[in-house]
Amino acid sequence: MKRSPDHKNKNLTELEVFGLSAQYNLADGHSYISAKTHYQPVLSALPELWNHAAETTVPQMEKEFKDTFAEYFGLDGLRQHECFSICPTASNSIDIVGAWARAMKYRVGLVEPTFDNLAQLLRRREVELEPIPESSINDTQALKTLIQEKQLNAVFLVNPNNPTGLVINQSLMTEIIDLCKQLDVVLILDTSFRFCHRTHVDEYALLTEKELSFIILEDSGKQWPTLDTKASLLSYSADIAPLIRNIYEEIYLCSSNLSLKLISAFIEHTISLGGVSYIHALVMKNAQTVREQLANTLVSVEEVDPDSTMTIMWLNIEKTGMTDLELIDYLAQYDVAALPGRYFYWNSHHVAGHDRLRIALMKPDEQFAFSISRLRHALEVLEVELGEARTPCLEGA
Amino acid sequence: MKRSPDHKNKNLTELEVFGLSAQYNLADGHSYISAKTHYQPVLSALPELWNHAAETTVPQMEKEFKDTFAEYFGLDGLRQHECFSICPTASNSIDIVGAWARAMKYRVGLVEPTFDNLAQLLRRREVELEPIPESSINDTQALKTLIQEKQLNAVFLVNPNNPTGLVINQSLMTEIIDLCKQLDVVLILDTSFRFCHRTHVDEYALLTEKELSFIILEDSGKQWPTLDTKASLLSYSADIAPLIRNIYEEIYLCSSNLSLKLISAFIEHTISLGGVSYIHALVMKNAQTVREQLANTLVSVEEVDPDSTMTIMWLNIEKTGMTDLELIDYLAQYDVAALPGRYFYWNSHHVAGHDRLRIALMKPDEQFAFSISRLRHALEVLEVELGEARTPCLEGA
Repeated sequence: MKRSPDHKNKNLTELEVFGLSAQYNLADGHSYISAKTHYQPVLSALPELWNHAAETTVPQMEKEFKDTFAEYFGLDGLRQHECFSICPTASNSIDIVGAWARAMKYRVGLVEPTFDNLAQLLRRREVELEPIPESSINDTQALKTLIQEKQLNAVFLVNPNNPTGLVINQSLMTEIIDLCKQLDVVLILDTSFRFCHRTHVDEYALLTEKELSFIILEDSGKQWPTLDTKASLLSYSADIAPLIRNIYEEIYLCSSNLSLKLISAFIEHTISLGGVSYIHALVMKNAQTVREQLANTLVSVEEVDPDSTMTIMWLNIEKTGMTDLELIDYLAQYDVAALPGRYFYWNSHHVAGHDRLRIALMKPDEQFAFSISRLRHALEVLEVELGEARTPCLEGA
Repeated sequence: MKRSPDHKNKNLTELEVFGLSAQYNLADGHSYISAKTHYQPVLSALPELWNHAAETTVPQMEKEFKDTFAEYFGLDGLRQHECFSICPTASNSIDIVGAWARAMKYRVGLVEPTFDNLAQLLRRREVELEPIPESSINDTQALKTLIQEKQLNAVFLVNPNNPTGLVINQSLMTEIIDLCKQLDVVLILDTSFRFCHRTHVDEYALLTEKELSFIILEDSGKQWPTLDTKASLLSYSADIAPLIRNIYEEIYLCSSNLSLKLISAFIEHTISLGGVSYIHALVMKNAQTVREQLANTLVSVEEVDPDSTMTIMWLNIEKTGMTDLELIDYLAQYDVAALPGRYFYWNSHHVAGHDRLRIALMKPDEQFAFSISRLRHALEVLEVELGEARTPCLEGA
């Protein structure tokens, strides 16, 4: 008897939890590519990494981690930036943003669609939220009107966005920062998928130069397969640092030197392999597998922003004749786990996203091809069933 | 020029952060005993631990971790308990308790004194708090009156308590559970210092048997020196599980298999060394050093509950003639970091705890003796200065 995923909480993580037990898990976007294949030298060096971590003070290790991260992405602005803390996960960083916004009684505009736990975490903190449609991000006049009409105090964007891959490039980011400065609005950026950019964006440098109040949160877990041992850099402008640091210290004394050293070693090894383009090559290989396997099926890949190489894919499922939740349940019979589109529409999931599914690409190398092939098989069976249902029954004719 | 610790946020973690950069750090209670000395076989096996963690599913690893933890402490009740999640730190577990209490609109009674971030996290979540003095814990009639008068929905206790070491033993715990059941109150227990118990307490078994609604949160970081790579088991009764699990999943998909495997290996190695009594021996050795070094100084060790072997010590500083904050500042001149007593009095720090200091014992073996010796030296200088100040100036006589 196949299990069926829970929908009782109507959120994405619940379905990712189902995926953890599914044989063909394409649900969560955490990086589980094979560390043995790509990072064996780091794994062999674990005892030495421990020694180094044990011999380094926490403040020194936190700075080393930030500098390594900045070097990998060529972020001069981050390297020079001094106000930061490190959380165990990006969600913990988002939650601190929520606590801060609540304390400030700020009304926050948040991009829609995006991964639903951003809205959930902020709402759990009782922050007043307004959706910012992706279309207003490319149109600063529309964004300006929205900020003014909704009387927003802060704008929370995801760059590149999950799941659509929409990129705010250097020039658009400059425009948005200018607008926020003009309207006296804090800019909050979730850059967890920074490694998916194809062009260089250093928001830290832009924000510092323009002297805008800001928060940027990073993630390591979408890129490096560290078995969910993660670190999320949380940086903020000096003017808002005291309250954010106060909230941080209510929860954390510090991050783990071992986690930071381990992730730093993964970063350094990636640099030795060619840097972020090494990761892009892995992603593009898996994306190519998806395109080949899903060609001529009932689902098609939504084209993403050419400026990003996303590790997740947004699928159009209109031709299946099923809603996203129906298709998720159907795929679960094949032990395939994916995410329904609607919950990314955190403010309008009753009407939007029912014709989309998200799948994740950073899965164990040996399992990924099987999972996509299984997905294709399930879709082929569905197509046959749909064809039979449409053919008039001969006996009854 | 010696630095002076910040007091601007008036909290303990801020002073622990100062301690991270102090040469003689006795501030935070995280375990930093030498892993090289006590856990070398685990460190050497890190690459194999990674492999095992990578080959195990997340749900399986979470269950294995819980079972290992239960075995170490002889907690049959925990072994049989099924509703649990794992957070990266105990504070994250406390914060989830806060979010849950807020969602339930519960008024919560919290023990005082205790580490101040419990109250801070709950207040940040806008939970209504009432202090429960330690004296009411030993006196269930007083506790009953307090619960009724303050109309509490939940009682949040710390066992053993930090910093006083007060133990709620099996028989008192049974009484408290009966009282909570009678008054229909949820019992919340922070058992981060469980390893400091000298007698066996299995709250899980008692709570399950009595069918009381409960939350228990554990910690690994006070005992095992895993460089702040931690795991906090968060268990809850089935009746309140859906909301807590929902809040958990807003933040986390899962914990890190690597962290869980690493901590499990530390636990198993401790078992091979003799179990919790091995840890007690280390603690008692350091406690003995403190007693010897601080004998005949201006500070004295407060005697703790004979049922606990705490890894922190509560010092009486009345004879210094200084308040806790003054003494903290004075010790900072010697680069010694400790915690002021007042902030443990989260509801009455303006008047209470000014004559207490807390020091932590689980520090690197080679540094601990130096730190205590430095503390003694600073106190001796202070005593001489006080003596000189009291002696009338001869020239002026």
